[in-house]
Amino acid sequence: MTKKKIFIGTDTVSGVAPQILKAVLTASKTKTLPYGNDIFTKKCERTVKKIFQKNDLEIITMMSGTASNSLALASFLRSYGNVICHNNSHINQDEGGAPEFFSGGGKLLTLSNTLGRIKAEDLLKKIEEINFKGKLNTVISGVSITQLAENGTLYSLDEIRAISKICKKYKLALHMDGARFSNALVSQSPLSPAEATWKLGVDCLTLGATKNGAMAAEIIIFFSKDLAKEAKYHLKQTGHLIPKTRIISAQLNAWFENDLWLNLAKFANQKASYLRKKLSKFKDFKILFPTQGNEVFVEMSKISYNNILKLNIFPKLWNKKNNCVVVRFVTSFETTTDEIDEIINRLNTKFANN
Amino acid sequence: MTKKKIFIGTDTVSGVAPQILKAVLTASKTKTLPYGNDIFTKKCERTVKKIFQKNDLEIITMMSGTASNSLALASFLRSYGNVICHNNSHINQDEGGAPEFFSGGGKLLTLSNTLGRIKAEDLLKKIEEINFKGKLNTVISGVSITQLAENGTLYSLDEIRAISKICKKYKLALHMDGARFSNALVSQSPLSPAEATWKLGVDCLTLGATKNGAMAAEIIIFFSKDLAKEAKYHLKQTGHLIPKTRIISAQLNAWFENDLWLNLAKFANQKASYLRKKLSKFKDFKILFPTQGNEVFVEMSKISYNNILKLNIFPKLWNKKNNCVVVRFVTSFETTTDEIDEIINRLNTKFANN
Amino acid sequence: MTKKKIFIGTDTVSGVAPQILKAVLTASKTKTLPYGNDIFTKKCERTVKKIFQKNDLEIITMMSGTASNSLALASFLRSYGNVICHNNSHINQDEGGAPEFFSGGGKLLTLSNTLGRIKAEDLLKKIEEINFKGKLNTVISGVSITQLAENGTLYSLDEIRAISKICKKYKLALHMDGARFSNALVSQSPLSPAEATWKLGVDCLTLGATKNGAMAAEIIIFFSKDLAKEAKYHLKQTGHLIPKTRIISAQLNAWFENDLWLNLAKFANQKASYLRKKLSKFKDFKILFPTQGNEVFVEMSKISYNNILKLNIFPKLWNKKNNCVVVRFVTSFETTTDEIDEIINRLNTKFANN
Amino acid sequence: MTKKKIFIGTDTVSGVAPQILKAVLTASKTKTLPYGNDIFTKKCERTVKKIFQKNDLEIITMMSGTASNSLALASFLRSYGNVICHNNSHINQDEGGAPEFFSGGGKLLTLSNTLGRIKAEDLLKKIEEINFKGKLNTVISGVSITQLAENGTLYSLDEIRAISKICKKYKLALHMDGARFSNALVSQSPLSPAEATWKLGVDCLTLGATKNGAMAAEIIIFFSKDLAKEAKYHLKQTGHLIPKTRIISAQLNAWFENDLWLNLAKFANQKASYLRKKLSKFKDFKILFPTQGNEVFVEMSKISYNNILKLNIFPKLWNKKNNCVVVRFVTSFETTTDEIDEIINRLNTKFANN
Repeated sequence: MTKKKIFIGTDTVSGVAPQILKAVLTASKTKTLPYGNDIFTKKCERTVKKIFQKNDLEIITMMSGTASNSLALASFLRSYGNVICHNNSHINQDEGGAPEFFSGGGKLLTLSNTLGRIKAEDLLKKIEEINFKGKLNTVISGVSITQLAENGTLYSLDEIRAISKICKKYKLALHMDGARFSNALVSQSPLSPAEATWKLGVDCLTLGATKNGAMAAEIIIFFSKDLAKEAKYHLKQTGHLIPKTRIISAQLNAWFENDLWLNLAKFANQKASYLRKKLSKFKDFKILFPTQGNEVFVEMSKISYNNILKLNIFPKLWNKKNNCVVVRFVTSFETTTDEIDEIINRLNTKFANN
Repeated sequence: MTKKKIFIGTDTVSGVAPQILKAVLTASKTKTLPYGNDIFTKKCERTVKKIFQKNDLEIITMMSGTASNSLALASFLRSYGNVICHNNSHINQDEGGAPEFFSGGGKLLTLSNTLGRIKAEDLLKKIEEINFKGKLNTVISGVSITQLAENGTLYSLDEIRAISKICKKYKLALHMDGARFSNALVSQSPLSPAEATWKLGVDCLTLGATKNGAMAAEIIIFFSKDLAKEAKYHLKQTGHLIPKTRIISAQLNAWFENDLWLNLAKFANQKASYLRKKLSKFKDFKILFPTQGNEVFVEMSKISYNNILKLNIFPKLWNKKNNCVVVRFVTSFETTTDEIDEIINRLNTKFANN
Repeated sequence: MTKKKIFIGTDTVSGVAPQILKAVLTASKTKTLPYGNDIFTKKCERTVKKIFQKNDLEIITMMSGTASNSLALASFLRSYGNVICHNNSHINQDEGGAPEFFSGGGKLLTLSNTLGRIKAEDLLKKIEEINFKGKLNTVISGVSITQLAENGTLYSLDEIRAISKICKKYKLALHMDGARFSNALVSQSPLSPAEATWKLGVDCLTLGATKNGAMAAEIIIFFSKDLAKEAKYHLKQTGHLIPKTRIISAQLNAWFENDLWLNLAKFANQKASYLRKKLSKFKDFKILFPTQGNEVFVEMSKISYNNILKLNIFPKLWNKKNNCVVVRFVTSFETTTDEIDEIINRLNTKFANN
Repeated sequence: MTKKKIFIGTDTVSGVAPQILKAVLTASKTKTLPYGNDIFTKKCERTVKKIFQKNDLEIITMMSGTASNSLALASFLRSYGNVICHNNSHINQDEGGAPEFFSGGGKLLTLSNTLGRIKAEDLLKKIEEINFKGKLNTVISGVSITQLAENGTLYSLDEIRAISKICKKYKLALHMDGARFSNALVSQSPLSPAEATWKLGVDCLTLGATKNGAMAAEIIIFFSKDLAKEAKYHLKQTGHLIPKTRIISAQLNAWFENDLWLNLAKFANQKASYLRKKLSKFKDFKILFPTQGNEVFVEMSKISYNNILKLNIFPKLWNKKNNCVVVRFVTSFETTTDEIDEIINRLNTKFANN
């Protein structure tokens, strides 16, 4: 008998939380102004200001994470400019050249390590190396970090502080890709959104709800109003300002309400911990990196991987090297303990414990 | 006693048809592949092929009308290229430079007349005038027409045929902005979608559902697969390929099902006819252009316009000249006869009949 | 016997003044820093400051007029911005979309009239009409005027003042395309370069030497240093910063020395006056526009034009309408009285005087 | 007594060969068509076809090396595309983002090694790694190699063949940056230009004359006419098509005539060999890489480097690490044996031989 397929490789296409669906229905029926001048977007702005404890910030709500990252970067990245980021970052590897396009030719300069996070000392070295080449050849505009990082781990407050200090010294903007910011935040609990961002020197945050309960809702938060000046024009020119913006903002309002965003993230993180603990018992699996959010990375032989697929379990194939593969398991607000137990039960039929 | 505000100036921010809302709910809960590889998008492709009686076409479903126009244009418009369109067209006046941006600097060359539609003879004259200047100065890539035109009237089949003939002669792509294509189609009933587009020589159509019952759903139909080759890369790079594309395609599926798109359009058009008939009775109003879809344009003095606003009726201020204004009334699938009667009743309190 | 061909249609491909050739030879042999840090460019900067009576200006010397215009425009034109110019302007019709490209999609909005010059009242009307549409749709960034205008006439000081006043009011940058600025300046003698530009409110001037004695030398003068900030990065990124910049700047130094630029222009203008006087005697020719620089525009029948070509005289075919053509005669610093007399003698064999 | 400064760090700002200066003078005085339709450019095309033994090629002559590289790349690189090159390559590190700009956002993916040349095996690995990520994320368009490589060494015919084979397999265009191609060619003598380029599978070559005797002259050779189709439009739109193109092409004609280009390169290479031999005697200097053209790279302590500067000898500071620096000595067609002997004499006063 064929087993039901279990997709456990991404949170990108999870479902939609009921509270958010309900908000979409209400907004659909509400008459209000188009193009972001609606009451839902205004409420969202008030909410964000309160949650982030800052009054002089600007927000943009939109439907696409790739676009929100690129628009945020374009707020300080000119065609002749460069942004330093990790080689594995989503903006560098997964966005089809959107940051380069939005900025009219801006360039990403990458730092590599197996850690998945930029180290302050590497950043400093890179900046000095580049400046040595001469200012007309390469203009550094900013730095982009990802929280949770691409390998599912956290930048510590100290790590961000060290990076931020370098940014201030060299007058570079600091961008945080927060596609999984909510997972990161609850993982450091108690930590306020403000302490996790602008109080550390982050200039703008792209905060994603789509992976964590929304239908399609992302928000850019500019902690400096100056940075936001051109973004509204870019939003329009890139076709991301839609008439019924109320539908997007309504999702975000429901997401923020009663800490839904944090609760969904907490739930997902707990499931990831549980999954990790269970997976770590198999001797064919080597767990990589700490699990500080909702992701578990596992190294295994190609043979093991193929056996997993035969069990109709589908983690995401992350990379391949020689006879090994790395796969990613991701939990979401929808992942149940039953689902994980089912995964483990199936694995038990093919794999031995330590 | 203050009267309830009546917004009758745009269909852009109307509500969402219940059939479409229901489809969104279902899609939200359905597990399927991300980024347009889902079962809803596949179904949408099959449906479009059937409705447009053509197998070798390609579709892209997306959330933004500005973006779908720009992406369609960028399929044949290079940075050094030019597209000829009407001066009043949405791509020229209302999209914040998106066509120019998506094409990396492509240029719109405009034809002007009060008609709101390109005339074949003017097009020909423009092409000859440009080619006279020399090929390196200005490269003409294509022509874009809007159906319904911006002033709410129809291009006749003969008008499009004449334009299309010139396009073929000069090897220019022919794009149709169909933000209100459904209103245009039912207005020419019986006319098949095929006869209204590719059989006339239209190379790509951007077909909008957002103004006619959807939440946020647009579709580009490439009648030549060649034209579509680069569009999927552009879609990704411009940040318009979203993970939960299923939500968009599900809206379109419901929209096409049981001729909902046509029925909603027919309803809106009928209401516009009714409104026009009523408005034409007032001697202070001068109705402009035939009403061949869901729009009624009215010229009046500034004083009259201000009096209308005082009645809490809000048509869209279209343009101003000297002491006159032109305003636009737009009906949608939600406009009721009662709502129109209420408008007329209020007008009767301030304006005299012929 | 076939007569020698006389090309009298453009000053673009005239020869090189001996003083400038000599300067090129000297610069070729001089060791100095590359990329504009050379002693010739520094001298050029000092010279321009003196001639334009302004210390806080910035210059860029380069080889291409199209590029210098586009770079100047890009100093204030963003991808989402618009520049208002005359429909016939070189930036709009003859530069292959370079302004749009350099600005990543910026747009030119055009004003039309047979005059060839923008009228302040039309500019004002256009601005108001655009602003009516809404700020996100169209952002006006600046205005560009051409001195000499494309039809060979002058903007009067009052005309520029009126345009400049509107620019200040709406915070628009004012650019002057001065491809034939030297011809314009001597035509208004005595008028200082300062009085003809920044004292009128011009923010940046692209001053061309190539049409008036140089090999390939153009200069952008930013009267506001702020405007120049990004231009040096753009210069590099567009590939217009060449290693041996000294060769360009040396041409300009020779051009400015001992008023060579003014003397060459005066010479060309005198020849144009002489030619115009002679041409006006033929009853088949209708002289258009005043000749206020080095250009004479003549309307004639197609038959007349063909007869001129048969005489091996080649003015530039400017435009065609029905049975008429307009042709342009352009004199340069190389045009001799003998050459003009030869043209007139040939014409006398086919055309009758008034 | 202060010694005369000796700049020995770059060939970029050397003088101009007398044969080329003479050609510039002649072209200055010759009346011919503008914008590359002149007799000099036509002759250049015939010459290149003969020298490269290929009739179906297209050329573009221009003034800027950065622009010629970027234009060549843009012939196959779209905004969403990627080109693989060495991390140290000129296009990646020294052109201010021009390749990204010309392609509207195209991206360079880099391979690193101390060799300075791409290895076929690394290229293959990179391609497979990228394709693993998915086609919408990263579209590989082509590969760019530099001959002479940035560290002054040669790609062997076998190395290029191996790279070219991979390009064919994956349908990638192969571009060669030949800023110092002439130095590379004579270094492999006897080797025909054809055997060094298109017979190995190179699709387009940017061949530089500026570093080797010209004033400002570069040429793009498209070995496939298809590739050249859009380049002429780009040339115009980027402002690199200048009216007096004859001045550029005349330089190239003189450069190719009587093997001047090869003779100048041979001369420069010989001087580099001589210099290398002499430098290698000093025990404080460590010569890096083979000298296969006109460049000698030397590693030394910072103290040594400062001592060299005190002798008024200026090689180019290439990079720094800890207490060491790498400097580059470059010879040109102007470098004399006397000049080198003078360098060595000065060095003898401060440095000891082995």
